[in-house]
Amino acid sequence: TPRRSLLEDGSGQTADWQVSGSGSRVGRVVDTFRADKVLRYRANECSVSSKTGSGGGGVQLTIPSSVGQDQLTLSMDWFLQHNTSLSVTYAVKDKKPHTFHVHYLPSDTLLWTRGTRSIYYGVGLSYGWRRFTRNLLVDLQKGVAAMGHVPRTLRKISRSRVQVLSLQLCGEGRLDNLTLATAEHLQHFYAAADWLTRHQDHTGGWPITVPRTIVKDILQLASGWYSAMAQGQAISLLVRAAHHSGDLTYLHAAARATHLYTVNSTQGGVRAYFPGGYAWYEEYPTTPSLFVLNGFIYSLIGLYDLKETSTGPVSAKASELFNTGMTSLKTLVPLFDTGWGSLYDLRHFTTSRVPPKPARWDYHTTHITQLLLLSALDPDPVLRDTAERWTEYLHGKRASHN
Amino acid sequence: TPRRSLLEDGSGQTADWQVSGSGSRVGRVVDTFRADKVLRYRANECSVSSKTGSGGGGVQLTIPSSVGQDQLTLSMDWFLQHNTSLSVTYAVKDKKPHTFHVHYLPSDTLLWTRGTRSIYYGVGLSYGWRRFTRNLLVDLQKGVAAMGHVPRTLRKISRSRVQVLSLQLCGEGRLDNLTLATAEHLQHFYAAADWLTRHQDHTGGWPITVPRTIVKDILQLASGWYSAMAQGQAISLLVRAAHHSGDLTYLHAAARATHLYTVNSTQGGVRAYFPGGYAWYEEYPTTPSLFVLNGFIYSLIGLYDLKETSTGPVSAKASELFNTGMTSLKTLVPLFDTGWGSLYDLRHFTTSRVPPKPARWDYHTTHITQLLLLSALDPDPVLRDTAERWTEYLHGKRASHN
Repeated sequence: TPRRSLLEDGSGQTADWQVSGSGSRVGRVVDTFRADKVLRYRANECSVSSKTGSGGGGVQLTIPSSVGQDQLTLSMDWFLQHNTSLSVTYAVKDKKPHTFHVHYLPSDTLLWTRGTRSIYYGVGLSYGWRRFTRNLLVDLQKGVAAMGHVPRTLRKISRSRVQVLSLQLCGEGRLDNLTLATAEHLQHFYAAADWLTRHQDHTGGWPITVPRTIVKDILQLASGWYSAMAQGQAISLLVRAAHHSGDLTYLHAAARATHLYTVNSTQGGVRAYFPGGYAWYEEYPTTPSLFVLNGFIYSLIGLYDLKETSTGPVSAKASELFNTGMTSLKTLVPLFDTGWGSLYDLRHFTTSRVPPKPARWDYHTTHITQLLLLSALDPDPVLRDTAERWTEYLHGKRASHN
Repeated sequence: TPRRSLLEDGSGQTADWQVSGSGSRVGRVVDTFRADKVLRYRANECSVSSKTGSGGGGVQLTIPSSVGQDQLTLSMDWFLQHNTSLSVTYAVKDKKPHTFHVHYLPSDTLLWTRGTRSIYYGVGLSYGWRRFTRNLLVDLQKGVAAMGHVPRTLRKISRSRVQVLSLQLCGEGRLDNLTLATAEHLQHFYAAADWLTRHQDHTGGWPITVPRTIVKDILQLASGWYSAMAQGQAISLLVRAAHHSGDLTYLHAAARATHLYTVNSTQGGVRAYFPGGYAWYEEYPTTPSLFVLNGFIYSLIGLYDLKETSTGPVSAKASELFNTGMTSLKTLVPLFDTGWGSLYDLRHFTTSRVPPKPARWDYHTTHITQLLLLSALDPDPVLRDTAERWTEYLHGKRASHN
């Protein structure tokens, strides 16, 4: 069970906000929309764009010592008004303690940084009440990774080195139920499920805007491509959201997400064919095809989840796609076996122009885990035998030569 | 140029045969069939089946010291009569010199041994004049390998350790042009070509009588199977015999040898199909298919040789089979690339029940040599690129992982 510390709810639990600067203030008021008392704040003079990035003035809260150092998930109901922001100040253990600031503010830019201390997350431009949940450790790690010049010792920051020192509110807004917790899985879960339902397009897919080059001049994807792995993992999440919430909106979104499995990658979908007519759902739907193993299996797991949790035509279609894919997998998985490890994809076969791409060990381990999972769903010995042989490769065994 | 020592031709060159035992004799007579003087011998009392295997009595010739130790190819015209045999006595250097006897005698049994000294080769049961050519070193090595209990130091006998001491004739017969030479390639060549024309069956093939188990209970061949590699190598030999001799009999045999390339391995032929319709000529035409790489390439080289040296429909058919096979090879050869070496076959794909079979380094080297040869005939970069990458594997390079 996660441990939670409620810091401020405008009524029963109030925090010790430090107010500085002229015009800055906090107060607890009844919010008519929420029909509840909330914290209202104003701190017009503070700025998150100052040279130090630490903000000056405003409304600040030092994290009480009663909050555990591992309570790094912040959540609150947040009413964003004009020019508002939330800033988090961290101390990170290093030779000497290093201070970072993560600022959350209305913007459509996902992430940017300044100097070696300041990280900015745009949280979108929609104003009004919202549920706001952030993993402060992940946001710090991603921000530091996005910085240009950071000492090597700060490139990887483990949880035990991080302490959240304080929060700072700027601009105008309201908040309620401000909490620091060890985890807020369910909130992240629904945030993701809701994002997926909001952003699903007319194809049932979630287009990926980042262009992707697998092999220069040969295997490339322009902005707007779909990934069978993304579709499959979205389905896996959505059917769980439907199951947990009882809200069929999620299930309908999951059902729509299968459409792209039936569209060939040459036509903007994710389906490729190995010679002999073996359908493969492509993590990267390049032309020629790539046949990435782990992404394909994730796409199958999505189909499995959907067929098991739906009924009627939706389940029937998911079953058909799943069975077709499983036949392909069981037929073709030996081609990923190098006798000492596994291949990440079949690029060497489809292009004939590049070397095979052995999977590094963490992908090899992923392959094993995936095959073991599928072997629990399908008794064909090729799944378990392959998983067992690939496990032996991890321990240095090699297939005997002739 | 091979060095040759003519030991006996019944007229200009006569050898110093030692005759012992009652009734044994040698003489030079005009043979009416050959219209030439030949050696006639009789040695009824000698026996190659004595306990020592060395024979007793008979007609014996000590090899003159003028014959080089590397002149290990014996040839003669030999008229086999009742109960005749030729025995060769060798000294092999070891801690102490070891004596071996190789006996050639009329029998349909190819090879047998007795004790640790005596090796027997059946030379067939046809009597009358024949051209007889043997590589005495190979016959010794094969015979010793067939023996049960031989010291380890004698398991591999290099040429420099072998000295032929003497020849012994038993029974009745005639011989002419007895020669010891460093090589008799052309005689071996025509002996093989003639054997092939004599033993080709109605399918144009040379059935292999040895049952073969590739993978127990899964990949097996019963006696009487055909091999695309055997067909291809036979074709390569036969077209050269036709070219060298001008005798079209050899070319016709080569043309007939392509028939089995058009018969599926499930129907007793050698053609298999990889999914997608890629024809593959099988060294081992198992069901399921095996897709041995090196044997397939030998089968293609045979087709190439035939299409280049024939005309009309024979050349057209060989071309079609060659081109079809080359398309398959260029498409599928990447599947043999493990990122650190090559696979011997695709058994792991066709059975899904066995690990992949990496080629040991001498087969890997064969693959490289074959691909380089084909890359001189076909500009598709996959041939040369693969050969070059596989050469790098020989030096320890590996394909980079993802």
